[in-house]
Amino acid sequence: MSKTINLNADLGESFGAWSMGADEALLDIVASANIACGFHAGDPPVMRRTVRLARERGVGIGAHVAYPDLQGFGRRRMEMPPGELEAMVIYQIGALSGIAAAEGARVAHVKPHGALNNAACADLDLARTVCRAVAAVDRSLILLVPALSKLSEAGREAGLPVVEEIFADRAYLDDGQLAPRSRADALIHGAEASLAHVRRMLDEAALVSVSGRRLPIRAGSVCVHGDSPEAVATARRLREGLAELGYAIVPLTALAA
Amino acid sequence: MSKTINLNADLGESFGAWSMGADEALLDIVASANIACGFHAGDPPVMRRTVRLARERGVGIGAHVAYPDLQGFGRRRMEMPPGELEAMVIYQIGALSGIAAAEGARVAHVKPHGALNNAACADLDLARTVCRAVAAVDRSLILLVPALSKLSEAGREAGLPVVEEIFADRAYLDDGQLAPRSRADALIHGAEASLAHVRRMLDEAALVSVSGRRLPIRAGSVCVHGDSPEAVATARRLREGLAELGYAIVPLTALAA
Amino acid sequence: MSKTINLNADLGESFGAWSMGADEALLDIVASANIACGFHAGDPPVMRRTVRLARERGVGIGAHVAYPDLQGFGRRRMEMPPGELEAMVIYQIGALSGIAAAEGARVAHVKPHGALNNAACADLDLARTVCRAVAAVDRSLILLVPALSKLSEAGREAGLPVVEEIFADRAYLDDGQLAPRSRADALIHGAEASLAHVRRMLDEAALVSVSGRRLPIRAGSVCVHGDSPEAVATARRLREGLAELGYAIVPLTALAA
Amino acid sequence: MSKTINLNADLGESFGAWSMGADEALLDIVASANIACGFHAGDPPVMRRTVRLARERGVGIGAHVAYPDLQGFGRRRMEMPPGELEAMVIYQIGALSGIAAAEGARVAHVKPHGALNNAACADLDLARTVCRAVAAVDRSLILLVPALSKLSEAGREAGLPVVEEIFADRAYLDDGQLAPRSRADALIHGAEASLAHVRRMLDEAALVSVSGRRLPIRAGSVCVHGDSPEAVATARRLREGLAELGYAIVPLTALAA
Repeated sequence: MSKTINLNADLGESFGAWSMGADEALLDIVASANIACGFHAGDPPVMRRTVRLARERGVGIGAHVAYPDLQGFGRRRMEMPPGELEAMVIYQIGALSGIAAAEGARVAHVKPHGALNNAACADLDLARTVCRAVAAVDRSLILLVPALSKLSEAGREAGLPVVEEIFADRAYLDDGQLAPRSRADALIHGAEASLAHVRRMLDEAALVSVSGRRLPIRAGSVCVHGDSPEAVATARRLREGLAELGYAIVPLTALAA
Repeated sequence: MSKTINLNADLGESFGAWSMGADEALLDIVASANIACGFHAGDPPVMRRTVRLARERGVGIGAHVAYPDLQGFGRRRMEMPPGELEAMVIYQIGALSGIAAAEGARVAHVKPHGALNNAACADLDLARTVCRAVAAVDRSLILLVPALSKLSEAGREAGLPVVEEIFADRAYLDDGQLAPRSRADALIHGAEASLAHVRRMLDEAALVSVSGRRLPIRAGSVCVHGDSPEAVATARRLREGLAELGYAIVPLTALAA
Repeated sequence: MSKTINLNADLGESFGAWSMGADEALLDIVASANIACGFHAGDPPVMRRTVRLARERGVGIGAHVAYPDLQGFGRRRMEMPPGELEAMVIYQIGALSGIAAAEGARVAHVKPHGALNNAACADLDLARTVCRAVAAVDRSLILLVPALSKLSEAGREAGLPVVEEIFADRAYLDDGQLAPRSRADALIHGAEASLAHVRRMLDEAALVSVSGRRLPIRAGSVCVHGDSPEAVATARRLREGLAELGYAIVPLTALAA
Repeated sequence: MSKTINLNADLGESFGAWSMGADEALLDIVASANIACGFHAGDPPVMRRTVRLARERGVGIGAHVAYPDLQGFGRRRMEMPPGELEAMVIYQIGALSGIAAAEGARVAHVKPHGALNNAACADLDLARTVCRAVAAVDRSLILLVPALSKLSEAGREAGLPVVEEIFADRAYLDDGQLAPRSRADALIHGAEASLAHVRRMLDEAALVSVSGRRLPIRAGSVCVHGDSPEAVATARRLREGLAELGYAIVPLTALAA
């Protein structure tokens, strides 16, 4: 069996007394966890618990790095000098690495979150700042980023191992960007439709846009969500469906090698 | 020349637009820097700049870990479950380690700050929590703590390399505690008096209290301050005076080996 | 009908992307809302939404003031100088008052939260600091506090209108303190038991302890919770039961007059 | 003597253990203080101390409202929904109003700070959001804003009393914007040059740009700085010079009446 794919999800997004997400359910589904590092969500005890749960299941650990904005959940664009942002990304990777070390694990990948991800996907300078930060900590860290993004370009430029992801529940425009949520067809509803959407993109090695346009990519990972019981069920079905199609669910390290 | 001593200082205590301390001057004096990790002071850009300045001068890097309390500068006691505190200490060591890695350096020691230090010096359970955190990240991290404290006891118990420090400008009570600032004789004023105070404790291998009582210790480091031009001058004179007395100023790693 | 009672609940405890509590359901039950002010929970948009919902239902608005500790939800004791705490309490009352003004409402009462409440209930100096803060902003603000607490004593001392509350779901010790949750009989389970518990204390004008001891009080308010669907149902039943017993549910202002 | 002018300065920008600015010196010079409200600087004890010092000298109190960004000192643009920003501005005005009430004073004006000010000066929608917040709290609050800005336009539109300010030490471009600091002629150096700069704009009732272009305005206030001993001396000289020219230094309330 030669077909491989990674599944990833955003996890560890609780904070203090506030819970978020179905972490345990998702950790039984995905192969890689993007763990919040305390800047947009997560706090040290939440991070440690999430890392432990991931390690126990053999799920790969990644730093979900973000702008410093708990109240806005890292979804607000913040303008700052490149040097400040670079240090903030390094800090977050380091913090999660410390937690991982304490649990006998290590950070395998980095994925930018929210507004930082959106901005760096579209702005090559910003993307380079993020990649400089990742490379400064450890050149073997895998960069997990949207296909066809400036982040992907900057990651390869920086010599980082790059894995490109696609979204199981989001439609794409002709230029490869995610269809904005304001469009009626932005979201793929239901497990079977999501599976068909992902299958086609994997089979054709291309993003397939809402108008049917094909943009060649080499997707290594599929991002799934767990923000509702339905989302978890969809993610679970996606995993089963991919297995039925002959895909082995693998860690990012198996893809970036 | 067989006599050795380390000098340490608290550094990197600026935050955002606010400056604090004479970091560059002190980095030319001390052999080890206790660098704030963003919980009581410091922010990622400040941490990176401080680490870079330290590394350029061959000054050892330590994590100055604290309660999460910027507005209170980590000087307010906060009650929290051991597991939460443990994760917070791990997080801070990790964050500074990430910054250090990005600068081609590494964290050599850990020193608790402010209210956390005071509390853990007196409370063995709290001291054990701190030491568990340090050991969880890396058992080779040196614990830099006040002589005759519960922290020192817990550090040895945990198998950590421990270096005990004395204060150049503070008098001691008969039980080995620092004389509270409310006492008229709490502070040692002036460079020569500080040097004499330190010299006597090193020569006699003992804390010497305000009443002349001797408490045997093996001080490996002297903590100096830089919160005023006078404090920097005192620290500089202390370094010169120790050199004149035949002491080599060495990194903590040379002592804990 | 001459019997009156107030019902109060803690509300507005969401923060940013994180939801907490059944605010809308509780606002249909209680007469007074203790609204988080951004220090332990709540943020400006959450506060505004909560104030608006309360005002629309004629529910009285109170400032639920706390230690500055989002990650710990204000449940961690923090030691700080009285002047700092006093300013923090003033700040929170002011912030909620601004939000209330923008919604055509006003803050009627103040209730300390979590660790601040626990500490000030037991420590008269701390209680006086809190009351000094409340009185400094507006001497007509009603202090809503546990019966037989130092807070109640300090409030009367400061000339503030004071309303004492009892808890529908918590048993009391012989000294009037809440039975600690470690005791098997600490919690009153179910709506009917809660109603009977409250009814007895109102009828007898006394706290009734687990051992049957009576401590005379004049309870003006009953605190209910909404942290589970069951808790909301209990609160609803309590309101109905009190009405059936001839109690009018009134605002705090009707009691403190 | 019929000529009047207000002098204002940004104050209360210390935070926790960190000091900033020469507040006491400036409070002897200006008639209005823009006081940080804890979002970009200031904390409750700092706010209270600053309000007290201002009130003792008869200096008017204003809320210096900002984005929630202590580490960035409110200088980073943050994108957020209008409703969130509106609530944040209301919260800050309320918090300072509470502190002011506790000191027997009241907030007379509001001035946006840093990136919020810059953005709202150029973006009418953002300016309207800020003005909606101010008006929601109290329609008699004076809006203190740069001359010829969208903020000024939105303030008048919202029916707020508006006072326009000019900067003593900054040159203007032909469109009325401040010359960017990257230009060699952006800053006016020295007390006499600043006084001449201000005098000319007041005499001619116009901004006078670097190329000599006149843009009619009715400046009611001059903003001075205190970030260096020199800046304080310049501010002091400006006050004296304006008095010598026959200007009475008046509170904002005298201008907006």
